[in-house]
Amino acid sequence: MSDKAVKTAVTPANHVPPPARFSAGVRKGNILQVAGQVGFLPAEEGKPPTPAGPTLRAQTEQTLSNVKAVLEEGGASWEDAVMIRVYLTDTAHFAEFNQIYDAYFAELEQPPAARTTVYVGLPAGLLVEIDCLAVLG
Amino acid sequence: MSDKAVKTAVTPANHVPPPARFSAGVRKGNILQVAGQVGFLPAEEGKPPTPAGPTLRAQTEQTLSNVKAVLEEGGASWEDAVMIRVYLTDTAHFAEFNQIYDAYFAELEQPPAARTTVYVGLPAGLLVEIDCLAVLG
Amino acid sequence: MSDKAVKTAVTPANHVPPPARFSAGVRKGNILQVAGQVGFLPAEEGKPPTPAGPTLRAQTEQTLSNVKAVLEEGGASWEDAVMIRVYLTDTAHFAEFNQIYDAYFAELEQPPAARTTVYVGLPAGLLVEIDCLAVLG
Repeated sequence: MSDKAVKTAVTPANHVPPPARFSAGVRKGNILQVAGQVGFLPAEEGKPPTPAGPTLRAQTEQTLSNVKAVLEEGGASWEDAVMIRVYLTDTAHFAEFNQIYDAYFAELEQPPAARTTVYVGLPAGLLVEIDCLAVLG
Repeated sequence: MSDKAVKTAVTPANHVPPPARFSAGVRKGNILQVAGQVGFLPAEEGKPPTPAGPTLRAQTEQTLSNVKAVLEEGGASWEDAVMIRVYLTDTAHFAEFNQIYDAYFAELEQPPAARTTVYVGLPAGLLVEIDCLAVLG
Repeated sequence: MSDKAVKTAVTPANHVPPPARFSAGVRKGNILQVAGQVGFLPAEEGKPPTPAGPTLRAQTEQTLSNVKAVLEEGGASWEDAVMIRVYLTDTAHFAEFNQIYDAYFAELEQPPAARTTVYVGLPAGLLVEIDCLAVLG
C-alpha cells in the first residue's frame, strides 16, 4: 500500500444517481463501503427512479443486484463482504426474505457475511434497503 | 499480515444458528464484525430459539453475552470494540437499558466503544438487538 | 504503524457527555468511528442537553457540526468519511434533509461518503441522528 490511502467514489454505470451528495460506494485502502441500496431498476434517461416491482421478491433481487454492482465496480465481490445490513418494513417479511436471500447466496465460496436485520420506515413503495461493508483481500 | 487476508466465519459453540445464510461473526484481516445478536439462550437440540426472558434486563444481558461470545471466538474482546449498535423497540427503555449497559461495562480498561441507539421494529417478543464492529490490535 | 494499534477515546471539549459508558468517538489504527450524534448544543454546566431548535434544519446543522467535532478531535475530517448513517423520524423530511445536507457538503474535495438513510424512532423532540465511519489516510 502507498503511504496515503486514496478515497475513491464507486459509481456503477446505469445506476440511479444518489438523491444527495453521497456516493453509491466509496473505497479507501482495503475498505469498500456500499451505500444503502433499494430495488430501483437501472436508470433510464428522463424517467424517475422506478422499483423493479411491488413485491418483496422483485425488490430484494434488484437491491442485491444493485449492491453487487457497487461491490464489483469497487473491485470486490460478495466474497469480500463482511457485513450486510438489511432494512425491512414488516416483520412478516422475514421468512420470505430469508428464502430469497439464501437462494441468492447459495454458491458463496467464502463464509457468508455477518448480517443485521431491523424493521424501519422507508419511502412509500419501498420494502427493503440493504447496505454492505467489504474488506478487500 | 500475509499478502491476502482470509475471511473466516466466527461461530461460537452452542450459539443459535443464524436463520439464513449469514455468519454470527466474520473476521477478515484486523476487522471483526459481529452480526446482530438478540437475547436467545444457548441452543438446545430440538428446541426453537428461546429468549432468556421477557424483560429488558434478561434480554439485554443475554444479548451482550452473545455478542461477547462472538468477539471471543474471533480472538477479540470488548476492549477491541469500536462500535456497538443498539436497536431498542421503545424509547421508554432507554434509561433502564443504559443502567444495565453501564453495569455490564463497569470494568473496561480500554476506552468504551462508540455507540448508536435507535428505535426500530423487531420480531415479536424481542426488545433489543445489538451488533458490534471490532478492530483487533 | 506500531505493532499494536491503540484504541483512543475521542471526546471534543464542550460536547454533551454520552448518557452511558460509550465514547463520542473512538479511534483504533486508521479507523475512526463516530457515535450517533444528535442536535444538542454544546454542553453548559448545570443545564440538561438541549437541542439547537425544534426544526429539522436547526437539528441537522447542529448534528453535522457535532459529528465534525468528533472527526476533527480524532484527527480526521469529512474528507475521510466513508460512511454516514442518517436516522430520520419521518419520510416527509427526506427532501428538506437532502437540501440541508447538500448545502453543508457543497465544498468537499474528496468524493462524498456512502450514506444510508432510514426512518426510526428517536427520543421525544429529536428529528435526526447521524453517525459516521472514517478511514484515515
